[in-house]
Amino acid sequence: MITDRLTRDLYTEICRIPLIDPHSHINPHAAAAKSLDDILGYHYYTELAHSAGMSQEPLGKEVPPRERVRAILEHLDRIDNTAQYSWFLEIAQTFLGFQGQSVSGNDCDALCDAADRQMAQPDWEEQVLRRSHVEKIFLTNDFDDPLTGFDTRRYVPCLRTDDLVFHLDKPATRERLAKATGIDAIDDRQLRDAVGKLFQHFTNKGAKACAISLPPDFEPRPVSSYDLGLALGELVTGSEDVGAKRTCASGVFWMLAEHCREFGLPFDLMIGVNRRVYRSGVYQGQDLFDQRTSLIQYAELFNAFPDVTFPISVLTSVQNQELVSYSWIFPNVVTNGHWWYSNIPAYIVPDSRARLQAVPKTKQIGYYSDAYKLEFILPKYNMYRRILAQILADDFVKPGVYSEPQAIALARLLLRENSQRIFGV
Amino acid sequence: MITDRLTRDLYTEICRIPLIDPHSHINPHAAAAKSLDDILGYHYYTELAHSAGMSQEPLGKEVPPRERVRAILEHLDRIDNTAQYSWFLEIAQTFLGFQGQSVSGNDCDALCDAADRQMAQPDWEEQVLRRSHVEKIFLTNDFDDPLTGFDTRRYVPCLRTDDLVFHLDKPATRERLAKATGIDAIDDRQLRDAVGKLFQHFTNKGAKACAISLPPDFEPRPVSSYDLGLALGELVTGSEDVGAKRTCASGVFWMLAEHCREFGLPFDLMIGVNRRVYRSGVYQGQDLFDQRTSLIQYAELFNAFPDVTFPISVLTSVQNQELVSYSWIFPNVVTNGHWWYSNIPAYIVPDSRARLQAVPKTKQIGYYSDAYKLEFILPKYNMYRRILAQILADDFVKPGVYSEPQAIALARLLLRENSQRIFGV
Amino acid sequence: MITDRLTRDLYTEICRIPLIDPHSHINPHAAAAKSLDDILGYHYYTELAHSAGMSQEPLGKEVPPRERVRAILEHLDRIDNTAQYSWFLEIAQTFLGFQGQSVSGNDCDALCDAADRQMAQPDWEEQVLRRSHVEKIFLTNDFDDPLTGFDTRRYVPCLRTDDLVFHLDKPATRERLAKATGIDAIDDRQLRDAVGKLFQHFTNKGAKACAISLPPDFEPRPVSSYDLGLALGELVTGSEDVGAKRTCASGVFWMLAEHCREFGLPFDLMIGVNRRVYRSGVYQGQDLFDQRTSLIQYAELFNAFPDVTFPISVLTSVQNQELVSYSWIFPNVVTNGHWWYSNIPAYIVPDSRARLQAVPKTKQIGYYSDAYKLEFILPKYNMYRRILAQILADDFVKPGVYSEPQAIALARLLLRENSQRIFGV
Repeated sequence: MITDRLTRDLYTEICRIPLIDPHSHINPHAAAAKSLDDILGYHYYTELAHSAGMSQEPLGKEVPPRERVRAILEHLDRIDNTAQYSWFLEIAQTFLGFQGQSVSGNDCDALCDAADRQMAQPDWEEQVLRRSHVEKIFLTNDFDDPLTGFDTRRYVPCLRTDDLVFHLDKPATRERLAKATGIDAIDDRQLRDAVGKLFQHFTNKGAKACAISLPPDFEPRPVSSYDLGLALGELVTGSEDVGAKRTCASGVFWMLAEHCREFGLPFDLMIGVNRRVYRSGVYQGQDLFDQRTSLIQYAELFNAFPDVTFPISVLTSVQNQELVSYSWIFPNVVTNGHWWYSNIPAYIVPDSRARLQAVPKTKQIGYYSDAYKLEFILPKYNMYRRILAQILADDFVKPGVYSEPQAIALARLLLRENSQRIFGV
Repeated sequence: MITDRLTRDLYTEICRIPLIDPHSHINPHAAAAKSLDDILGYHYYTELAHSAGMSQEPLGKEVPPRERVRAILEHLDRIDNTAQYSWFLEIAQTFLGFQGQSVSGNDCDALCDAADRQMAQPDWEEQVLRRSHVEKIFLTNDFDDPLTGFDTRRYVPCLRTDDLVFHLDKPATRERLAKATGIDAIDDRQLRDAVGKLFQHFTNKGAKACAISLPPDFEPRPVSSYDLGLALGELVTGSEDVGAKRTCASGVFWMLAEHCREFGLPFDLMIGVNRRVYRSGVYQGQDLFDQRTSLIQYAELFNAFPDVTFPISVLTSVQNQELVSYSWIFPNVVTNGHWWYSNIPAYIVPDSRARLQAVPKTKQIGYYSDAYKLEFILPKYNMYRRILAQILADDFVKPGVYSEPQAIALARLLLRENSQRIFGV
Repeated sequence: MITDRLTRDLYTEICRIPLIDPHSHINPHAAAAKSLDDILGYHYYTELAHSAGMSQEPLGKEVPPRERVRAILEHLDRIDNTAQYSWFLEIAQTFLGFQGQSVSGNDCDALCDAADRQMAQPDWEEQVLRRSHVEKIFLTNDFDDPLTGFDTRRYVPCLRTDDLVFHLDKPATRERLAKATGIDAIDDRQLRDAVGKLFQHFTNKGAKACAISLPPDFEPRPVSSYDLGLALGELVTGSEDVGAKRTCASGVFWMLAEHCREFGLPFDLMIGVNRRVYRSGVYQGQDLFDQRTSLIQYAELFNAFPDVTFPISVLTSVQNQELVSYSWIFPNVVTNGHWWYSNIPAYIVPDSRARLQAVPKTKQIGYYSDAYKLEFILPKYNMYRRILAQILADDFVKPGVYSEPQAIALARLLLRENSQRIFGV
């Protein structure tokens, strides 16, 4: 598959590095897939099949899983050019013994049967982890997750805070917060206490990061206790005032950063997504972005919290160009993976190349899987590792900048050691 | 010229695909050039020669065509590095028997004589079409074009609507509309009737698309009949109110989308150009762009018209990154060619690569010529085909993603079949 | 180092072209470094070392230079992946006889000793210039620089105007202006006279350009004498009114462009930097950018001054895409080098490629060193020359667009002749 010998050698060596996967959506209680429906239910396939002409009917809850799988498989020939399709093909080949070069509706029953057989094995999760050579996987936990019943050294908890920052106007969110903390947060002091309880709970359970995804126009600012209390008061009484929502979002966000400082947690920022842009889209296939955003919106934050590390994910190559420069200048800004719409080779290649040429090597988290099921870690990381091997060959080893062992050492920082140091795992 | 054997083989095969050219400015009554002046009068040459130091004097109507040609040729040595120059050189070599490796003022008389001789042949148009291997060419027709006197199966009409959306404040536009439809549109109801008549006329004559170019800050919104009527009333009475113009533009645009739905026409959006930025520029060489634009501005439109297909052209690579994601998510958004300032290899390569890796292959219209004279179809498509062959070789065939026949089949979608299906030709 | 033979041959030939370096921060009274501290004190190293974890303590004035050097060297292993590090390594190898493949704190004393020895030679400056094969170097001179005591044919003065445009509200700036011109400029007429005196002084001393760096939101507009007088009056009386500052900035900027026209000087615009974004950053390591900027902001300027040439530097690839199009259309807009954060191969490659394919070759200034000490000219230009050789090989010579001598001739325009013609040196 890789024709250049040096690149292939580097790739082989890079594949030996045990992974720390610093961002995923894995459910630790059901980490591996149980059927092909768990694999093809991933929004990358439902949204692409829908975009290419599939109605949403097969996605209904009442549709038998195998029929849903069949419907999606029948649309794969329209997307067999995509990187996303190639992940699925690699899963089928690696984990399901699939021998073909392309998958279609005709393979439905054979593939489903193979999946049912493989995934029913009691040690399937262990098998997938072993073949994927992954040691630790960060989760995305709701703030009211009890974090019990799984090995938090393998599945590292991470406090996801979108709801707290952007949905505190919803009674359901406030009720969940009250239930999780025992505090009915209707003023800023109570809110601060509640947030403190969440951080205490999460760090007690081994959480190693706080995380949030942010819309393109978000610009955090410190908010006084008085103003936050006022804004929160409005929301609690049912106001839908945009200003109050914005003040509250900024205030809670700032409060989270303060707790990251106090509890020694890095704060993962995933910058640029607008939610529900395509309102009739499939589940998790509705969000898009506005390229008109800038890291300058976060300059005050980076200045105010020199002791908090901010691993930053962005959605476009022009944001990546900002990120390269901001992480070159700000000690507390580090580059983090290749997120969502920018997670295809056409964008990973230029984005990584720029980072590798201009950001201190100790400040780069190379990749994360963003996976919902363990099976996706292997093909996604392989895509990244092939690109990394190519860049290391072309930009480092061939021009004599690095020896091969030095290149491998750099890969080890990107795939493992930087995450270990930055997140303290 | 192409050194890699696989790329060359793919290129040769791709050149065998009969083209559907889904966007041009060809005048079907004078489709082929009649002299070298018709070729070098293309704004790409007048504007580059002017930018490189040529005064506008030779472009005057009173200047003998051969002297104008000579003036432009004398400036070509300053732009012989450009892709645009390479198109001209390929035209001279392919159609005029030119043997040299570069063209200068010294070649003026020989080239003009050769052009006069060749282009005077009664079957010149047929010869050019045959050598260019193009089957159908879409036009850009003013809304009041009678669409008579040419073969609309070869030269496919397309309703261009910039004037209706952005120049309805001008009495001349309203008079043209009245003359074309028999309706003096001074309120929203009459305007709707007039637009309906235009669509009826165009579709009767075989039109297969509606099209418009849009400024970077345009953000279409539905406008109520009442508000549109009010705004139109203001414009009709000579007001230059910016708000009224904007309301009218949005309202008419939305009305066009409604008619596209009713008449089953795709709506080509060419997004991002500001007109008359360099006000002393040559004819058609005055427009430039503002990169600060986003497809989010069209989200409401895409949501509101799920049954209308929107082939989208953009001007920058960051807009292309949005386009890749929007066409990956929205079923009714498709990628369309490489437009104007982005139509050079340095931008076609990354832009196509991203599309090919992340957009369903059935939703990509690979290329259009944008040509004013038939002779430009061949060199422009050749530029694209070389790039396409290279990407197919490097990203698809060499890594084992596609076999060679599969790669050719993908090219066939991009150059022919997707246009056939999307536009119904 | 370069494995392709054609690229290597082109590189060798390109290195023979005597350079005109059209932008630097060289102090002509201390052009070459006097110690390793002069080299590693360059903000690229202090800021990257700081970003990678070095405290600012070693940068204090009271710290012995060799200890500062040691501290920075000890952090280089964290940034040995960067282009900036590679410049330093090449300086050590070329000018200091360093034999190793990487530099660390262990090399401190040996390198410092070697530097002290080499740089103490009375003809060190001449040696560096000769080895770097540079003929003329443009300076960045404060408006009140007396411009005496150096050879202005070698070190070409350039009037830097940031202070006049953006800091006229500061009494210190106005005092410097009064001292330099003998005019206490408290109204617009006096200001115009003072600026005229500066241009007279600078051009008398051989200045060949006026230059300024501009924030991303700057949008110059002509300001009437009356409005400028009013705004200036406010600033003189200590007002901090933002509107007055903005009016004054626009008015002074426009006045500078008028003087460029009168005195026949090109006006270098370096567009897009925000100052003091990371407020606790090291000296000169605090500035960053906002990608949301457009050359459309300068359209009125380009239209108003057709006789002034504007060499434009930008900070991002999307701005570069605008620049390619604006210099393709506007006769008075030319591309200028690869500035600051965009001066790494990952961005130079696509940015130059686009310029070479779409901008008249006579309108491109290929590169400038931006150096503070002469020793940096060689490694920075080598980085650019390698990239240029590669693009000329891949895009021009191999596909048969240019012969090798034509490719070299193009390089000569980019590295020397365009600067000679545009700046009149």
